[in-house]
Amino acid sequence: MTMLRDWQQRCARKRAARDDLIPKSWLVPELMKSQSSNLLEVPTTCGVLTEQEIRITTDYDAVGIVAAIRDTTFTAEEVTTAFCKRAAIAQQLTNCLTEIFFDEAIECARSLDKQRKANPEKQLGPFHGLPISLKDSFKLKGKDATIGLVCFVGAPAEENSALVDLLQSLGAVLYCKTNVPQTMMTADSENNIFGRTLNPNNIRLTAGGSTGGEGALIVLRGSILGVGTDVAGSIRIPSSCNGIYGFKPTSDIVPYSGQQNDVVDGIVGIPPSAGPMATSIRSCQFFMETIMKARPSVFDCSVTKVPWLDLKPPRVENLRIGVIADDTLHTPTPPLHRALREAVQKLVAAGVTIVPIQLTDVQSNMHLIWDLFSIDGSAHLRSLLDSTKEPLVESVRRIGLTTTPGKSIEEYFQINHARSISSKKFNGMWKEYSLDAMLCLPAPHTATPFDDWTVITYTSLFNLFDCPAVIIPVGKVEDIDLLDEAARYGENDQRVYDLYSGPELYRDTPTTLQLIGQRHEDEKLAGVSVTVDGILNGR
Amino acid sequence: MTMLRDWQQRCARKRAARDDLIPKSWLVPELMKSQSSNLLEVPTTCGVLTEQEIRITTDYDAVGIVAAIRDTTFTAEEVTTAFCKRAAIAQQLTNCLTEIFFDEAIECARSLDKQRKANPEKQLGPFHGLPISLKDSFKLKGKDATIGLVCFVGAPAEENSALVDLLQSLGAVLYCKTNVPQTMMTADSENNIFGRTLNPNNIRLTAGGSTGGEGALIVLRGSILGVGTDVAGSIRIPSSCNGIYGFKPTSDIVPYSGQQNDVVDGIVGIPPSAGPMATSIRSCQFFMETIMKARPSVFDCSVTKVPWLDLKPPRVENLRIGVIADDTLHTPTPPLHRALREAVQKLVAAGVTIVPIQLTDVQSNMHLIWDLFSIDGSAHLRSLLDSTKEPLVESVRRIGLTTTPGKSIEEYFQINHARSISSKKFNGMWKEYSLDAMLCLPAPHTATPFDDWTVITYTSLFNLFDCPAVIIPVGKVEDIDLLDEAARYGENDQRVYDLYSGPELYRDTPTTLQLIGQRHEDEKLAGVSVTVDGILNGR
Repeated sequence: MTMLRDWQQRCARKRAARDDLIPKSWLVPELMKSQSSNLLEVPTTCGVLTEQEIRITTDYDAVGIVAAIRDTTFTAEEVTTAFCKRAAIAQQLTNCLTEIFFDEAIECARSLDKQRKANPEKQLGPFHGLPISLKDSFKLKGKDATIGLVCFVGAPAEENSALVDLLQSLGAVLYCKTNVPQTMMTADSENNIFGRTLNPNNIRLTAGGSTGGEGALIVLRGSILGVGTDVAGSIRIPSSCNGIYGFKPTSDIVPYSGQQNDVVDGIVGIPPSAGPMATSIRSCQFFMETIMKARPSVFDCSVTKVPWLDLKPPRVENLRIGVIADDTLHTPTPPLHRALREAVQKLVAAGVTIVPIQLTDVQSNMHLIWDLFSIDGSAHLRSLLDSTKEPLVESVRRIGLTTTPGKSIEEYFQINHARSISSKKFNGMWKEYSLDAMLCLPAPHTATPFDDWTVITYTSLFNLFDCPAVIIPVGKVEDIDLLDEAARYGENDQRVYDLYSGPELYRDTPTTLQLIGQRHEDEKLAGVSVTVDGILNGR
Repeated sequence: MTMLRDWQQRCARKRAARDDLIPKSWLVPELMKSQSSNLLEVPTTCGVLTEQEIRITTDYDAVGIVAAIRDTTFTAEEVTTAFCKRAAIAQQLTNCLTEIFFDEAIECARSLDKQRKANPEKQLGPFHGLPISLKDSFKLKGKDATIGLVCFVGAPAEENSALVDLLQSLGAVLYCKTNVPQTMMTADSENNIFGRTLNPNNIRLTAGGSTGGEGALIVLRGSILGVGTDVAGSIRIPSSCNGIYGFKPTSDIVPYSGQQNDVVDGIVGIPPSAGPMATSIRSCQFFMETIMKARPSVFDCSVTKVPWLDLKPPRVENLRIGVIADDTLHTPTPPLHRALREAVQKLVAAGVTIVPIQLTDVQSNMHLIWDLFSIDGSAHLRSLLDSTKEPLVESVRRIGLTTTPGKSIEEYFQINHARSISSKKFNGMWKEYSLDAMLCLPAPHTATPFDDWTVITYTSLFNLFDCPAVIIPVGKVEDIDLLDEAARYGENDQRVYDLYSGPELYRDTPTTLQLIGQRHEDEKLAGVSVTVDGILNGR
């Protein structure tokens, strides 16, 4: 018998406590969990959900379900129960949840139903009865927010994150939190506490990170609207891996205050942002509109008061989209190369003006990003890890963040200055080409095998420039996505390019695109995204 | 014969070159410059201005003069010539100008008149023909921006500040830049190059700083609209000393990029902001509206895209104003104590709801501010000063900034964190008391004798919290403002309080108040200020 170390015991207890929160009647037969690499059909076939619960969780997006509660097709309790059950299924299939509070959620929904009955004239909150899942980094009073670090196990939050208060004030029902990587700095949602979240499209590939639990949960429709955070791609990478919509706003548009964090307080690097992940683009738009109209600065005084103006999106025939073919460092692999090419064809056919544009200074900008991520030499993070002696998981070990030296204050000023020069240059392109949006890939590849995702150029540049960006799923890897040998940018590119081994291993893996907007023009990007999604996905 | 040192020769040549730019026929008889401590009447009595030029420069504010050009009462050339002449008079009386480019300005105005004649149907720019003066820190291609440092003499700017391009695109006529303190960090606009700017209300007292040249120029109506910058009170202190309106916006609302600077590039301390100084509150509002509607982010990508929404200001009877009696460290001297008391009486009489509120943690917040101003230990500033061996002027020597040690990056994070906690606490007051604005003094005293202004609590706190703030002149020191002995907060308070020696020395010195708005609610503050100014000044 092996003796478990201290940290291992803490993790085992935490996991067991979580698992105990799933009622026996919601358990999925073991057999169904492993019958295929693609688990997307299991929730509707495993026998746990009633017909009505399948309808509720399958046939609606967040906008639709809010309307269905409003018009009394369903009660909030019915909806919440259905999503709790489907989230429990998703958890059993992919290990996507960290904190489970189904009972409280159902109680909350019941109370919303009651309040409505008692005051039928009172206007309903815009999220009345809508179940919303949250990345583990959001704090709820009395619940852990471990963010994959053992030191935070059994240290319940003393207050809510600002966004939690705001969501509840709007009638949302919170019911679970979702898994992240140890350190939240990799694209593999694995940590010593909960283990790894699997990608239900193809369990041999990563679910992405850091908001990987949301990605898996939402594509299985254990949630139709979740909230993630993104400082280098943490909303967009799991959205891309799982094939859902993910919207990274400009920083300080959606309340971010009160996150559980593994960096030192007061650190200033790349500005992070919180944003929606969902099963439809209009749900992302709905989330952004609702939050931006709800006086978020009252809940978080660091919010920038950019109002939602009910702008009309530009007409298709006036749309000008800049297309970025690649990041100048990594050649797109065949499935994504095809996805972008087909998208451009559809956009041109719809009358959109396409403007080829090229990123510049990518290498030096990536150095800036890395410098900004390692300003304090990860001293605080290392002390958190050391406090329990937990080891690094493989994906964290590979990126080497915890061994990068810190910066002096003089170096920090230089980095800042270089960043503002670079932002100015990038921002000049919007004016130079009169663009409404930029279109590019989220990465050179789809979801990769475990621990192999290291390229964050395509996502983190838009954190550096603080532009809103959205992931739009457009298809899946197809048999026609045959291997070629097209890596153009040298050895490192070849190594990344070779991750794609042809369609066999990548069967059913989603292909997605990324649409970029101008800083603070989140509303416009949401509008343009609805239009572009309509063109690309025939809606 | 004394040999001049190198730096002295450079300064003497620079001054002489500036003085040569004033035409002989615009010279004011020596006698008139020194007949009284109050020089406000000299421009209209010295014989330099024609009757029409007196009307143009005396009877209009910025809004009025733009309308008068628009309706062809005056040409742009007539208006520009009149303000160039009056600015030349102000310069001779108070030494308020640094760079003079009257010829170019008149040529520009003439060209605006011609363009209008050639295209009578074309819409005029919102600032068409409006002369706007600028703090010396704004860069104009080909002109010096010495900001009071000898090392920058003879180093013409290679490009315009972002705001300069924006103002010119809106039809403004730029004609002069105005004096600042060496280092721009004191309330005495004195430096080794140009010497000291005098306060034309009372030449024995400081004109304030750092935008002191604007203060003197505008109260003499050598300008009716100027642009300053403010990181601790640099718009508000000289507005207060001279008795004009000055509006410090939230940072990054008015383009700030491309300032001449004496701090190292990329430094992040207190966020500075650029804003208007004018002869009327509606001119400040007009400036803010015009800039915010002119897509300023196209000129400066760091601008926050908060739009101007044409909000209706709250009705007087719904207005709730929090009154801050003092900064909890410095007792208001009799003239300002009276000014605030009378203002509150008038507001109450008008139906405004007054809510007494108290600042907290002022001492520790002032430590934060000082830490943020000395992050790099002023190393860059010292190297600029050392490069020419110019000595410190008295006011700079007194504040001791250049001898404060720098901070480590860890200390910087701590400061940042403390600041965000403090901002959250301050911001909570807006919600707690449902306030539309806060009313307080700009300092415990009016303009002081030279080099004696050291208290920046009343102004810099609102830089720390990044709130917009406006100075409203309400009167002058009166014979009834007799000395008392009311200093309440100990020795340092007594020392500051004793600067006020009774009405004799302070004759004609303006009394002003400060109105504070919420971060990013610059439009609302402008609207509320128009209402409050109407009540206080019977407009």
